[in-house]
Amino acid sequence: MHGAVIHAPGDVRFETLDDPEILEPTDAIIRTAVTCVCGTDLWPWRGLDATGEAHPMGHEYVGFVEAVGGEVTSVEPGQFAVGSFATSDNTCANCRNGWQSNCVNREFMTTCQAEYVRIPNAQGTLVATEEVPGEEFWPGLLAVSDVMGTGWYAAEAAEVRPGSTAVVVGDGAVGLCGVIAAREMGAERIIAMSRHESRQELAREFGATDIVTERGEDGVARIKEMTDGIGVDSVLECVGTGQAMRQALHSARPGGNVGFVGLPHEVAIDGEELFFTHVGLRGGPAPVRRYLPDLIDRVLSGRIDPGKVFDLTLPLEQVEEGYRAMDERRAVKALLTP
Amino acid sequence: MHGAVIHAPGDVRFETLDDPEILEPTDAIIRTAVTCVCGTDLWPWRGLDATGEAHPMGHEYVGFVEAVGGEVTSVEPGQFAVGSFATSDNTCANCRNGWQSNCVNREFMTTCQAEYVRIPNAQGTLVATEEVPGEEFWPGLLAVSDVMGTGWYAAEAAEVRPGSTAVVVGDGAVGLCGVIAAREMGAERIIAMSRHESRQELAREFGATDIVTERGEDGVARIKEMTDGIGVDSVLECVGTGQAMRQALHSARPGGNVGFVGLPHEVAIDGEELFFTHVGLRGGPAPVRRYLPDLIDRVLSGRIDPGKVFDLTLPLEQVEEGYRAMDERRAVKALLTP
Repeated sequence: MHGAVIHAPGDVRFETLDDPEILEPTDAIIRTAVTCVCGTDLWPWRGLDATGEAHPMGHEYVGFVEAVGGEVTSVEPGQFAVGSFATSDNTCANCRNGWQSNCVNREFMTTCQAEYVRIPNAQGTLVATEEVPGEEFWPGLLAVSDVMGTGWYAAEAAEVRPGSTAVVVGDGAVGLCGVIAAREMGAERIIAMSRHESRQELAREFGATDIVTERGEDGVARIKEMTDGIGVDSVLECVGTGQAMRQALHSARPGGNVGFVGLPHEVAIDGEELFFTHVGLRGGPAPVRRYLPDLIDRVLSGRIDPGKVFDLTLPLEQVEEGYRAMDERRAVKALLTP
Repeated sequence: MHGAVIHAPGDVRFETLDDPEILEPTDAIIRTAVTCVCGTDLWPWRGLDATGEAHPMGHEYVGFVEAVGGEVTSVEPGQFAVGSFATSDNTCANCRNGWQSNCVNREFMTTCQAEYVRIPNAQGTLVATEEVPGEEFWPGLLAVSDVMGTGWYAAEAAEVRPGSTAVVVGDGAVGLCGVIAAREMGAERIIAMSRHESRQELAREFGATDIVTERGEDGVARIKEMTDGIGVDSVLECVGTGQAMRQALHSARPGGNVGFVGLPHEVAIDGEELFFTHVGLRGGPAPVRRYLPDLIDRVLSGRIDPGKVFDLTLPLEQVEEGYRAMDERRAVKALLTP
């Protein structure tokens, strides 16, 4: 089979690879329907995370169950299945507490920009749809497996409530999905921070009521101006830089909440400053598995369409162009079709 | 009148001071019934916070309303009143959101180890009891004005729920009151971290089911051992040092919660580490005003007796001995009677 391999920053190749095999009785093999490039894939692409030895890439997938190990009974060959970028047995204490992305047997997916993918912990990770959905739903279901699930978690961690006011920091795919989540959870006012016209447009389509183009402390000042100097109830931090975290913490009202889902890169939080804000802070890799049944329903019923974050579709063999287009911000998110 | 003045680390004097006066129409004057020394008063006493110029001390008080300004209608002279160490108008957006300790007109109390005290924002700060309570209730009501309210907030911020497991880091008065709060909120297992026998005893009396004497990473290892390697649902961090914060964060289970109420001294939280724990974190000066009606009821009905944290009673003129006894850990908390 073929798939993407990163050799160095800026060097992702489409190569011939060994077909994945069932290694554990808890594995499944998926034939990829669609996959994509994630914002976090850009960290090694840009050389901001070490790439180390050449290795496959990708952690988002939906597809057809091709084979299952002896202990997998929840899905069967031929079914269309959605999973999460973090696999989970869905039975351990952490899974039972709803934190499947902290499963004691968790393995992060890392080989999904490929024609076939081995899924560890398949029993607890994959959710099959009742029928094979039409191709028009595939991008939305793919979004659910990562960015939509992550935006949902950001809104949940930020404790978005009906009638509340939310700010979304970050206008990438996760931030845009965070807007969808905040709207679904009933936020009355959703302020998207974005300076890119096409992203602003999509944010508005997804439910943003206001756009703030200023960044950093100027952005915070604008938010304060819009909220009688108090700040907002909930902030979804969908970037992962120190500046984005400061912007998030300073935009929240006293006693408000920040949900942070951008993988933090050199982010330090001052305990005394956090103390006096009364702001609640929770982050992490989203427990997507917990949301899958609900989010799959919302996509298949047409209630939400997070697939719209894919504004570029490429054949899988052009995966490198997907990285380049996202790096240069020519695309929000690149869909790859095997 | 007379009151305590700090001149330098280790130098607190009982001096003649000007009688406080109504300065604003929102002020009240209280004749102190009882006051006390707080763990946070030990920071300047120990020279760990700058003392600057000589200034009065103390932020805990209950007493008799002596006089009120023209805009104060909620209490009247002769009544017995309980307040908070953070004054609040109880009408601003932050107060309405329940964060009275972040009131836009907040003033922290700083002159309460004295015979008379001026209370700013008296209308929104003071809660009068229906009748003048018997002297046996005064220590409990005094505790409510700070340490009991703070322990309550720690448990609330740590999201203690019926049936949950809680750890309390810190065996000072706030930590001990945190045990009371966790029990009142229905925690099934309450683990107090303490290596002092008399404090362990009080913790057990207040509702602790287990005592852990180990500290730091040894303490964390012990907590993990007791919880199948997972950690606890809720941690109340009642110290304020970097070590205590690490101990708290590492003791919580994935997706658990840490409520931190010890004023952080050089505490930095690593964003990436917090991210992968999924732990929710909220701290700050407790919004005691929000809890006052409920906590006063619990004390006067005899349901809780946080006044037991006072294990030393001194006449106010011996205030310096109160500091010394607490600094040397001969006393958990010193009650001062004018």
